[in-house]
Order: sequence, then structure tokens, then C-alpha cells
Amino acid sequence: MHASTPRRLEEIATHVGGELVGDAGLLISGLNGLVEAGPGDISFYGNPRYRRQYEATRASAVLVTQDAEPRDGVSLVRVSNPHLAFAKLSSLFHPRPSYTVGLRPGAHVHPEARVHPEATVMAGATVERHATVGARAVLFPGVYVGEGAGIGEDSLLYPNVTVREHCQVGARVILHASCVVGADGFGFAFNPEGERGPEHFKVPQVGIVRIEDDVEVGACTTIDRATIGETIIGRGSKIDNLVQIAHNVKVGPMSLICAQAGVSGSVELGTGVVLAGQVGLVGHIRVGDMAKVGAQSGVTQDVEAGQVVSGTPAMPHQEWLRMSVALGRVSDLLKEVRTLRRRVEMLEKKEKGG
Amino acid sequence: MHASTPRRLEEIATHVGGELVGDAGLLISGLNGLVEAGPGDISFYGNPRYRRQYEATRASAVLVTQDAEPRDGVSLVRVSNPHLAFAKLSSLFHPRPSYTVGLRPGAHVHPEARVHPEATVMAGATVERHATVGARAVLFPGVYVGEGAGIGEDSLLYPNVTVREHCQVGARVILHASCVVGADGFGFAFNPEGERGPEHFKVPQVGIVRIEDDVEVGACTTIDRATIGETIIGRGSKIDNLVQIAHNVKVGPMSLICAQAGVSGSVELGTGVVLAGQVGLVGHIRVGDMAKVGAQSGVTQDVEAGQVVSGTPAMPHQEWLRMSVALGRVSDLLKEVRTLRRRVEMLEKKEKGG
Amino acid sequence: MHASTPRRLEEIATHVGGELVGDAGLLISGLNGLVEAGPGDISFYGNPRYRRQYEATRASAVLVTQDAEPRDGVSLVRVSNPHLAFAKLSSLFHPRPSYTVGLRPGAHVHPEARVHPEATVMAGATVERHATVGARAVLFPGVYVGEGAGIGEDSLLYPNVTVREHCQVGARVILHASCVVGADGFGFAFNPEGERGPEHFKVPQVGIVRIEDDVEVGACTTIDRATIGETIIGRGSKIDNLVQIAHNVKVGPMSLICAQAGVSGSVELGTGVVLAGQVGLVGHIRVGDMAKVGAQSGVTQDVEAGQVVSGTPAMPHQEWLRMSVALGRVSDLLKEVRTLRRRVEMLEKKEKGG
Repeated sequence: MHASTPRRLEEIATHVGGELVGDAGLLISGLNGLVEAGPGDISFYGNPRYRRQYEATRASAVLVTQDAEPRDGVSLVRVSNPHLAFAKLSSLFHPRPSYTVGLRPGAHVHPEARVHPEATVMAGATVERHATVGARAVLFPGVYVGEGAGIGEDSLLYPNVTVREHCQVGARVILHASCVVGADGFGFAFNPEGERGPEHFKVPQVGIVRIEDDVEVGACTTIDRATIGETIIGRGSKIDNLVQIAHNVKVGPMSLICAQAGVSGSVELGTGVVLAGQVGLVGHIRVGDMAKVGAQSGVTQDVEAGQVVSGTPAMPHQEWLRMSVALGRVSDLLKEVRTLRRRVEMLEKKEKGG
Repeated sequence: MHASTPRRLEEIATHVGGELVGDAGLLISGLNGLVEAGPGDISFYGNPRYRRQYEATRASAVLVTQDAEPRDGVSLVRVSNPHLAFAKLSSLFHPRPSYTVGLRPGAHVHPEARVHPEATVMAGATVERHATVGARAVLFPGVYVGEGAGIGEDSLLYPNVTVREHCQVGARVILHASCVVGADGFGFAFNPEGERGPEHFKVPQVGIVRIEDDVEVGACTTIDRATIGETIIGRGSKIDNLVQIAHNVKVGPMSLICAQAGVSGSVELGTGVVLAGQVGLVGHIRVGDMAKVGAQSGVTQDVEAGQVVSGTPAMPHQEWLRMSVALGRVSDLLKEVRTLRRRVEMLEKKEKGG
Repeated sequence: MHASTPRRLEEIATHVGGELVGDAGLLISGLNGLVEAGPGDISFYGNPRYRRQYEATRASAVLVTQDAEPRDGVSLVRVSNPHLAFAKLSSLFHPRPSYTVGLRPGAHVHPEARVHPEATVMAGATVERHATVGARAVLFPGVYVGEGAGIGEDSLLYPNVTVREHCQVGARVILHASCVVGADGFGFAFNPEGERGPEHFKVPQVGIVRIEDDVEVGACTTIDRATIGETIIGRGSKIDNLVQIAHNVKVGPMSLICAQAGVSGSVELGTGVVLAGQVGLVGHIRVGDMAKVGAQSGVTQDVEAGQVVSGTPAMPHQEWLRMSVALGRVSDLLKEVRTLRRRVEMLEKKEKGG
């Protein structure tokens, strides 16, 4: 996609802290998967599952673990984690593009906003009164930064992102297109005697969202502001597309939340929690550090640190696997029990008669 | 968040129609939860589940029910519904911000649109031909109001909201950021002999969406226009984030639809229906007044008024609870039946032999 | 909604290639459902389920199959597929609106972008450097077309759509409001020794999204760019609202993906696949041509061509139906087995005692 200067394999090995086995002067001009790679490309092989593809790859070089077998005509770079090394290398070959710095014509920046002179605000982006935008932050067209909101250094806000008033976004944060930070939480109190009859009286949502450093938030993901206080996304956590984070949720640092998961109000996730796709959590529960929740699960109570749970309602993953297998046999079980009943009846008859 | 003038407890009690027990002249400057509140704050205590927090709160005053025990050094305001009273009080302390009225530079308003002089249209918002915008309505940057669409008085359209052509939005409606009102319904007719081979021929979606007064629609929620006629969201209903409402759906008044729920085409929800998070409804069914659907359920047939259903396919909630417990025992059941079979075989053998 | 010229029934029959039974000169001025239609309207009747509505309709004419019974005072047009004929007719009555051609004031088009003179770029839309926009394409306000991206002829991009850099969109494609094409895939490599401590190191997502001709993508749907290579949506496929398509997914031609479904990374869907609403697919699996997945299912392994699967984990639909029925009986089964055990114990006791 981006043209990039070829680099010597030697330089590459140094960059990833790996041990070179092969042609130090080999020129590498691109990166690709084992199947797609061709001459001049480097690939990676970290999982024995892909052994065949490793054996057949046309890549000139491959990042491998210490124990991978050598291959004729393929240079190797041995590292402890080939996937990570590949990611680092890809970053080297595809540096973040540079953006023209400053306020572009067509940007709507309030005179009382404070935008760092090295930030980029593109045409059609809006920065409201008392908002701050840090150095090297980039606001694409259609981005909205509300009154008093803050965007940290080096953060990237893709088109049509909304950050509502007073919400705080840290440094090196990436907000993908059309995600919404700080919409009102879903809170109402039933009022049988409203001015115009019964109503769901809106509970004002006067808190904020705080997104710590190095967080990434997916496209069309919604993170609601707290009723009072803060909804928090902890340092280094990554959230995929179309995720719902309700008011007053606290996501601990280094967590991963996959697409279309939903986290209800006041839930607390610990450090390094993983929620797989389409998971749902009821409100006011706590998921402990390093816990994992399987795809599509419905979590209805606290999950202890380190636990792996699945199913609706969620249970320990091993139990869920056992249950899933068992469920597949329920039709057979019904028949079996019917047969057993007849046999027992027969025995009883004979016993009586005998 | 917003600084607000302190108010005497007397005034507060009057505002919520409550009975003051304590210091009438006490100055209250903020609201907070029982745990977070400190001196000068008022909190609320309505659910005995939070008794301990009530007993430990540092709030100066608490909104309580008639039967709550008094606490030394804490002034009380007795009301019938502390949560509702708290919400009303929060509205008093945090009034809706005021917006500069009129068309801001950078707003794109068609000369044949009719925008009330007291409405606010911010830079980067668009109002197309023949569209109308009522008094005190506020259109944030990136809002799109299509040709012939209507936005009622006092409605609030947050950034990047889309209201497509001819859709009608009532008064006091809140549309959260990036929600989409009036995209085409998902309707196709398979055509084996299209111009360019087999195709899914698009069924034109020429109806509209009608959103009645006092509705709230969450961020990134999508409400599709009718194929012909109207998709309707009834008066006072509240819809959370990332919800899908398909073409020709009718949502009755005062319903609550939680995040990531999906309602298929031509479904009718009655009055005061509650759909919990991640629920899915198949098309063309009816959910009666005041019915409730539990989280992640899949509803495949009509639900009677007042019923509470759960599970996929959805069943009465009590039945689902019973079934959920039973399912957890299926592995044991398999073993038990295997043992029983052996015991029966043994008996049969003896019976024969005997 | 749109006024349209009345047409003679004769002309209508010709347009849909049907056989006219009734008044050739009858003037038809609108289309509607059997229930809603009145004098001057044409409706359609293709499914015997709606027989009663056909018998009671007040429509002046009805599109019917060859074997439908005639009705007094109602003209008929006999066709092989009434729904398709209705869709074609609706297209005739409601042609695509025409848009003023060219760059409107307030559009942000880079001088090195190539926009066809017959394309429409509305105020507040952005076209970046080296991007191309084809003839008769329409970009609504808030649309973003990134650097080097391409939009084909006759494509329609509704408000606030984002097409990120280098992604390619074919001809006659419809992208609904706030959908996001080409956000970064969700890829990280755990790095225990980052510059600032442990981190999820971002794997650069340097591939693109390719959307082939005649595709439709729903509102707030997200289609992520490939890590390397291409995420592909095949010709003529239709995707509903709030769907997640992860990096490197290949969707074959003519597939249908319903609202809120989620497709994980590197999945391949064949031709004419149907995913119902809220379905989830794990990564790296293949769903064969013409396969169908039932609503809310969780697919964890390959699905063969032509198969119909349901449930979580997904299984053949018939099996799932049988299992669903069986599950409803598990509570009874528990009781039954308890009774059986007692009866067997009794028999054993007697046998011993006897």
C-alpha cells in the first residue's frame, strides 16, 4: 500500500532484537503472510498449526521461534515472539503518515479553545469553547470535541468521531470513525405524574468519560458518560467496533473488548480482562483481573480473577464445554429414559406376578 | 461538573414535594451517590440493598422513603420515590445549557428550509430544502436533516446525527450522536434475471420514520424508514445505544429498549414494553403492553401483554429459570441414566436367570 | 411520499412482463400493501398466508401468481413473482431523485482528487488527495473519502459515511449513513516489555477494503481494512445495519447479512450465503455457497455449502429444532429419572430380599 524503502535483513534482525540465520545483506521490501509472500518479502511463523504454509512459503525471509527447522534458500530471523516481531517490523515499514499541522480552512475552532500549534484540525472538524487539543493530535473531518473536553498528545480522531463536553481523552489514543464518547447514560426514573402524564423522567447524566493513555476505540463504539463521576477506560485497553460501554463502567488497564460486546452500567472490569465478541454483562458486577469471557456469553454475576467463563448464564468454561456436549445428547436421553421406564415396568410386573 | 448555586434544604424539599426532617437552612451545593457524597451534598436512599451505604454516607442530607430510619447528623427529606426525587433535583442543579440562537456561520441551510428563529443550527450542520426545525431545537455540527424532514420544538440533535428525507421528529426529542433515522429498510426481491445476471433487486423504501414527542434515541442507533407507510416510535419511549429498529416497526408509547437490541421488520411493541440488552425479535410479531423480554433473548412469536419472557427461543421467565437450572444438571443426568441402565440390565439378567 | 404520475394498468403489466386480466385503461396512482391499499392503488399477493387480506383488499389492481383466484371488481396482473414485480413497479413510481451535479460550496475536495464532473459532492463532504469519484456518484454532507480511495459510478454515500484511505468502492454501491469502511482491524501482539511497560502492540493494518459493484451496506455497519491484503465484499451482496465485518474477511457475491451480525477475522463466506440477525462467526472459518445461519447463532466451525445451521454452537437446523424441543423437557426428565431410580432401588431390594 505505502511504498517503503527496502531494508537489509541485518538491519531488520537488529530492529526486532533477533538472531540472523542467513543472508545479512538480503534486501527486504515488504511484509506478508506465509501464503501470500513472494521474493523480497519477509513473513512470520510462530504457530506450528501453520507448519505446512511455512514449508511452502515463497518468502525470502521468515521470523521464526528458536526451535523452527531451517529451510533451504530461506533466511531466518530467530526471535522469542515472531508475531510481535512482525508487528514491530510492519510499524517500521509503514510509519504513521504525517499530516499538515495547524487549523485547516473550514475547521471550526472556538476562539477560547486551546489547540496546540503542532496539532492538526482538518476542515469540517469542530473544537468547542475551553476544549484542549494536544501536540501532534489529529482531528479528521467531522470530528466534534465538545466544550471543555480534552484530547491528549499524539491522539488520532478519525472522521465523524464525537467527544462530548468535558470528556477527557489521554495521549496516543486512537478513536475510530463514528465512535461516540460521552453520550448520555441510559437512566430514567418512572414518574406516574409528569406534566404531560406518565413519563420516564430523564436522570441528568452530568459525569464524564475518561479515556486513559494508549487506548484504542473501534468504529461506531459508544461509551456513555457517567450519571455522576466518571466512566473510565484504563490505560492501554483496546476496544473493537460496535461495543457498548454504559455509564459509570470502569474498564481496567490492558483489557481487550471484542466487537459488539455490551457492558451494562457500573460494571468493573479488572486488569487484562478479555471479553470476546457479542458478550453481554448485566449491571453492577465485577470481572476480576485476567478473567476471560467466551463469545456470546451472558454474564450475570461476578467473575473471579483468572477465571474463564462461557455460556448464558455464564459458567466456568470447562463446565460449559461439558454441558454443550451433554445438551447435544438430550434427544437421545429422552428416548433412553423412555426405554428404561418400559423395562422397569416390565420387571415390576414380573416381580409382582412372580 | 457544572458549577451551580447552593440551595437551602427547605427549597429542595419543596421542589421535590417532600417532608423535611432536619436543618431547613442547610446549604446543599451538590448531588452524589451515598458512597461518593461528602459534606454539602445530598444523596438518595430508596433500596434497602444499599442500607450499609446509607448508614455510612457522609452526605449532609439524604432523600429517603417514609420508613427509612433517621441518622444522627444527617438531614432527611422524605418522599415517595427517592430516585425520582433525586433525578428532579439533579435537573434543578444542572439545567440544560443554553445555546446561542440562530444559524451559525458554516451551517448549511437551504433557502427553502424553514428554521425557527429561536432554533440553533451549528457550523457544519445541514438542513435541506423544505425541512422544518422548531423553536429552541438545537442541531450540533455534522447533523443532517434531509429534504422535507421535520424536527420539533426543543429537540436536541447531537453531532453527526442523520435524519433522512421526509422523516418526522417530534418535540423535546433527544437524538444522540451518530444515530441514523430513516435509512432504507433491508428489503430485496431475488431476481434470477437481472440486467447483469442474478441480483437482489432493491425494494424501494419510500415510507418514513415518525418519532413522537419526548422520545430519546441512543448513539449509533438505527431506525429504518418504512417500505411504504411509517416506522413509528411512540411518545415518551426511550431507546439506548446501538439498537436496530427495522422498517415498519411500531414501538408503542413509554417503552424502553436497551442497548444492542434488534427489532425485525413489521414488529409491533405495545405500551410500556421493556426489551433488555442484546434481545432479538423476529419479524411480524406483536409484543403486548407492559411485557418484558430478558437480556439476550430471542423472541420468535407473539408475547402477551404483561408477560415476562427469557431465553432463545423465548419462554415464560419462570420456565426459563427452571430450565436453566435443569440444564446445568444434564451432564450428571447422563451419568445417572447410564448407571440406571446397568442396574436394570443386571436385574433383567437375574430375573431371566432366576 | 413522492408524487408520481398515474399510469395505465396496461403500461404497468408491460413493465413487469405480466398478463393483464381486467381493465387495461385503469389509472394506477400508487402502490401499497393489501391492507393499506385503496382505490387507485396496486398491491401484490404472492403468499397464500395473506389470502384473507387479498380477499378483503380495496386495491384497484393486484399483482398475483398464475393460480390466484380472480376477485370481482379487482383487476389482476399475473406474474411469476409478485413481490419482485411489485419492487420493479415501485422503482418505476419512485425513481431515484436527481441531485444537482458538481461540487457544492462548502465541499472540501483536494485539488489532486479526481471527481467526475457529473458527480455530486455536497457541502461538508470531504474528498482527499488522489481519491477518485465516478460519474453520477453522490456524496452527502459529512461523507469522508480518504486519500487514494475510489468511489465507483452511480454510487450513493449517505451522510457521515467514512471510507478510509485507499479503500475501493465499486459502481452502483449504496453506503448508508454513518457506516465505516476501512477502519483498522482489531489486531495486537502482546508485548511484555513495551517502552512504558506491558502493552498490546498495535499490528499495523495496512491492507484495504474492496467493495464490489451493486453492494449495499447498512447504517452504522463497520467493515475493517485487512491487516495486509484485502477485506472483500462480493458483487451484489447486501449488508444490513450495525453489522461487524472484521479484517481480511471475504464475503462472496450475492450474500445477505442481517442486522447486528458479526463476522470475525479471515472468515470466508461463499456465494449467496445468508446470515440472519445477531449471528456471530469465530475467525478463520469458511461458510459454503448458499449456506444459511439462523438468528443469534454462534458458528464455531466450517459450514458446508447448502447447509442450514442454528444454535450456539451452531448445528444442523433440524438437529437444533429437535434439541430445542428436548431441552424444554429436561426438568421433567430430571423428575422422571429420580422416580426411575427409586423404582429400580425397590426392585433391587426385593431381588436381594427375595
